[in-house]
Amino acid sequence: MQPDEKRVSNPTLNYVANAWFVAAWSHDLEKEKPFGTTILNEPVVIWRTAAGTLHALQDRCVHRFAPLSLGRCEGERLRCMYHGLLFDHEGSVVEIPGQELIPSSAKVRSFPVIERHSWIWVWMGDPALADAQLIPPAVGLDDPDYILGHGQLDYAAAARLINDNLLDFSHLSFVHAESFGSGPQFATSQANITPLERGIRYQRWIEGSSGTAARKNDEPVDSYMSYDFLIPGVLLMVGGNFPLGTAKQCEGGVPDLALAINGVTFTSQAVTPLTGNTARYFFSWGPHREHGDEAQRDMLMGIAAKAFHEDKVMIEAQQRVIDITPVPQVMPTAHDRGVTLFNRLVDKMVRAERKAPEAEPAAESTNV
Amino acid sequence: MQPDEKRVSNPTLNYVANAWFVAAWSHDLEKEKPFGTTILNEPVVIWRTAAGTLHALQDRCVHRFAPLSLGRCEGERLRCMYHGLLFDHEGSVVEIPGQELIPSSAKVRSFPVIERHSWIWVWMGDPALADAQLIPPAVGLDDPDYILGHGQLDYAAAARLINDNLLDFSHLSFVHAESFGSGPQFATSQANITPLERGIRYQRWIEGSSGTAARKNDEPVDSYMSYDFLIPGVLLMVGGNFPLGTAKQCEGGVPDLALAINGVTFTSQAVTPLTGNTARYFFSWGPHREHGDEAQRDMLMGIAAKAFHEDKVMIEAQQRVIDITPVPQVMPTAHDRGVTLFNRLVDKMVRAERKAPEAEPAAESTNV
Amino acid sequence: MQPDEKRVSNPTLNYVANAWFVAAWSHDLEKEKPFGTTILNEPVVIWRTAAGTLHALQDRCVHRFAPLSLGRCEGERLRCMYHGLLFDHEGSVVEIPGQELIPSSAKVRSFPVIERHSWIWVWMGDPALADAQLIPPAVGLDDPDYILGHGQLDYAAAARLINDNLLDFSHLSFVHAESFGSGPQFATSQANITPLERGIRYQRWIEGSSGTAARKNDEPVDSYMSYDFLIPGVLLMVGGNFPLGTAKQCEGGVPDLALAINGVTFTSQAVTPLTGNTARYFFSWGPHREHGDEAQRDMLMGIAAKAFHEDKVMIEAQQRVIDITPVPQVMPTAHDRGVTLFNRLVDKMVRAERKAPEAEPAAESTNV
Repeated sequence: MQPDEKRVSNPTLNYVANAWFVAAWSHDLEKEKPFGTTILNEPVVIWRTAAGTLHALQDRCVHRFAPLSLGRCEGERLRCMYHGLLFDHEGSVVEIPGQELIPSSAKVRSFPVIERHSWIWVWMGDPALADAQLIPPAVGLDDPDYILGHGQLDYAAAARLINDNLLDFSHLSFVHAESFGSGPQFATSQANITPLERGIRYQRWIEGSSGTAARKNDEPVDSYMSYDFLIPGVLLMVGGNFPLGTAKQCEGGVPDLALAINGVTFTSQAVTPLTGNTARYFFSWGPHREHGDEAQRDMLMGIAAKAFHEDKVMIEAQQRVIDITPVPQVMPTAHDRGVTLFNRLVDKMVRAERKAPEAEPAAESTNV
Repeated sequence: MQPDEKRVSNPTLNYVANAWFVAAWSHDLEKEKPFGTTILNEPVVIWRTAAGTLHALQDRCVHRFAPLSLGRCEGERLRCMYHGLLFDHEGSVVEIPGQELIPSSAKVRSFPVIERHSWIWVWMGDPALADAQLIPPAVGLDDPDYILGHGQLDYAAAARLINDNLLDFSHLSFVHAESFGSGPQFATSQANITPLERGIRYQRWIEGSSGTAARKNDEPVDSYMSYDFLIPGVLLMVGGNFPLGTAKQCEGGVPDLALAINGVTFTSQAVTPLTGNTARYFFSWGPHREHGDEAQRDMLMGIAAKAFHEDKVMIEAQQRVIDITPVPQVMPTAHDRGVTLFNRLVDKMVRAERKAPEAEPAAESTNV
Repeated sequence: MQPDEKRVSNPTLNYVANAWFVAAWSHDLEKEKPFGTTILNEPVVIWRTAAGTLHALQDRCVHRFAPLSLGRCEGERLRCMYHGLLFDHEGSVVEIPGQELIPSSAKVRSFPVIERHSWIWVWMGDPALADAQLIPPAVGLDDPDYILGHGQLDYAAAARLINDNLLDFSHLSFVHAESFGSGPQFATSQANITPLERGIRYQRWIEGSSGTAARKNDEPVDSYMSYDFLIPGVLLMVGGNFPLGTAKQCEGGVPDLALAINGVTFTSQAVTPLTGNTARYFFSWGPHREHGDEAQRDMLMGIAAKAFHEDKVMIEAQQRVIDITPVPQVMPTAHDRGVTLFNRLVDKMVRAERKAPEAEPAAESTNV
């Protein structure tokens, strides 16, 4: 571990820009109703045309900075409703009321935007590098296999602190001892963590468990969970309980999910940095359709509501302490392997982005 | 246009100080009840004596910075109610309880203050330059010719952004399409804008108009409006509808207002910078007494309430976008002629003030 | 008076650290319920063990800055409930879940903490210098001699401004003319102020007084009050009315308190800097048991509620004026002798602390 890896996140943004960020739920985007948000401290307007196409632009008119999200959809175009400048979906001004000539510099950044898995994904970096294959394989609300509930929370804390939380499940034994009913094993033993190209994989067996609040069992079971945590901050997790001995049978590896007692559940979660010290957290969770129903989904959502509130209380308090700490320096523990691997990956990718001028998000001229 | 004219207003104050600022309505100043406000980031206390005289001082005791607006009127004097220092109306301390000697430096700035047109005007620059002739000829609530309603709004935005709004009426076609019922002509054609010594004059005819929400007409009319926008940020506007053909008859110039169908209306508006990013907006509006009544005034106030709220939503959103924009730089359009003329005048006057040491408002010693 | 003594307090902390600060009331500390606060901009957690012992640590986990005040008491230890690190009462980490080795640097500062006079006192400076003898002799709520009410107020203002207020009682004639019913003498004549080793003593007689709201008298009396104002900001005051002539009989000195008409009252007050511009104000007040009862205590608390609100309005307004004043510089008056003496003492002690490396509170390594 290098010394600078100990630095905590601060309002200076240290996130990969060449990534798909969850900006909203699909159902947030009504036809011809512009949706304004902020990602990586950049105002972004997204809209869905009458024909159903999605577009995303900088949410800032070139004229006097009025937000285009207060504007009006006109076909594939978006009109600023302050003084009427009309933008095409690539960000070029195509009409200035009362003026013939349109300067060629009259453009705002456009962002690649894709709707998938019930989420609206926006690529915040170099559009030339936007590859739909890089969208994490989340499970959408309309997935035929799962019955999912969903929600979101706004955090008065840096996204990186939420990422850190999701990258170290040892906190389950403390923060969520009651809500998730997690036992002490999350903290007393290590998970199996492996690096991925754009994230890390976390896998763990809890042998002889009595299950959790989500899946209680009368008889001891072997509990299994596995998640990928992917750039920019997306967690995709499957979990379930298996007959005692399964962990040993598969040598601590991946079980046949079809053998899960009462089936598995799946959760998709996404952490989006709004500004340097605010973030939006999107989540869905629910049982597999073959073994669960709406009632079980609602029970899981009740647990999630309690547990995610516990995280929010802790992480926002953590942010407040950081804010009054002159030189905050973390002291990583053995459970921070996932945190360290992921943040090292982020740092490496951010450094690479900033070396490559065409991928520099701050240099807007390269993207318009 | 010079490069630095494109810079947007920011929390650094860039306003003319040698000007009369609207601080309050006449009726805000009750006898012997000190009124505290902030103008150009300077705390100001204004009071009306029992005899009716108005005085204005820095709202900050020389002793320990208690606001004098929490003080007590004693004849022409104002006593700080923290430790009892007594100030005369020119700002000199004339009594320090328990102390014989009063240092000659025990003074605060006094500000020229005049009540006129139902507004309390305070001169924030060099008192030696305060000329009552420079008070813009607003129309007071007690004017015999007009039946006026009035109101005010506090903005979480720089005064300059409100000025910009009032200097370019092309926004009427977009921001106020419904409230004022303004047609597209405000944006598709140019107004006639001429420079004044301390502001600009805006005049425009809309020929063949069906009127606006304020003055609807069954037959097409020629609509006329003319306003002066004056330093520091005062708009004075008359408007009315005229028989079709009037615009051509007077060659696009000033009509005989007495010929207005249903008479004219008049509005006085004032934008006062409180701090670098907050402002107070005062306004009155109403019909000429010969052609209107209280019901029409109330109808106009209803329209104003809606329209000025539309402005506030847009301008405060604009300010928030500016706040997260690293180097905000405007791209003026053809409709910005009034904005540019006025802001250029402001910049020129500010530069002149700052060159002349005796007019430098920050150098308090010159004014006490 | 040296020039730099005129500077007003600002968000940069200028307080003596080697002192006992009131952190809470005794009854705020329930057994095994960690109590989080902030003193001198430092997060502090205090807890009372099941056995009744008090401990205080920096409220910031060494791992990732989670506040320990969200933690769990375990005997004499405190467990961070984010990832489970366990701290002993001296601040050393003694357990890291899932990790054998504990770095020797895994420590937070511990603070000497003492419960006395119904208050929890925390020493914020060099622990080696913590001397319980320096705890000011406040009167606790369980004192056998007094019947005390109590309360507290949080200020959006620097503690130093509250200290200044309490060090110059000439404000009683203005701020509290109605609530305390103080006459003009507080401002027109001087109190007797003498320096103490760690503060100042304020004594004054008001001869021929008709008493105050707290102690009205039909016949004129000689009113006496005496308080010590002690580092870091503790006021301890006794007061009462005496037969006319008493002041002269004791030559303006200390009377025999037993001769007070209707007995004396006692108030203990403490001002604790939370951050540079926020503070917590603790107070108790009540009559001596031999001459008063609960009804009189409640009457006094009613007066205090009104008067302390008057102070808060004035001081928070004062802070807001200071905040927009470019170079705030006070102009001391004759009544500022107590303020000047005390602040000069503070400045001298702060300078001495900062010269002595072992007493430097910012250098945490010296204290862990």
